[in-house]
Amino acid sequence: MPRVVVDVMPKPEILDPQGKAVLGALPRLGFSGVTDVRQGKRFELEVAHLDDAVLAEVEKMAETLLSNPVIENFTVRVEEQ
Amino acid sequence: MPRVVVDVMPKPEILDPQGKAVLGALPRLGFSGVTDVRQGKRFELEVAHLDDAVLAEVEKMAETLLSNPVIENFTVRVEEQ
Repeated sequence: MPRVVVDVMPKPEILDPQGKAVLGALPRLGFSGVTDVRQGKRFELEVAHLDDAVLAEVEKMAETLLSNPVIENFTVRVEEQ
Repeated sequence: MPRVVVDVMPKPEILDPQGKAVLGALPRLGFSGVTDVRQGKRFELEVAHLDDAVLAEVEKMAETLLSNPVIENFTVRVEEQ
């Protein structure tokens, strides 16, 4: 079954407390080399079939349900199986 | 700056209440055509430089801090800018 992936990330200008918490924890756990972390969401949607209408609908879902467009950006892409 | 993406998703055999909530909301919002939704997390890590040692370290981070390996799978990949 075709799979569409929607990635939702906080906009660059928006503070990301979850990402900052991860970034702060890394040195305490002995990790170095990472200079920034942003945390977002990933949705995997299984669709019955794939065409432009379905992709347009997923785009609409991402905008209205899966993300908050005020503070988040999203990308929609088809995942090859 | 190179970016490494870690995707964390609930294992297929694990119930995913967030994904189920999204799936249940879709018909109420007038969307059809999606048969399953899984929700996970996406981490974007900026690293100072990129080599095999850094990637191995990110793999270790994903295993110990970013995911719960009992209930989640993760993938690590370099994102082309």
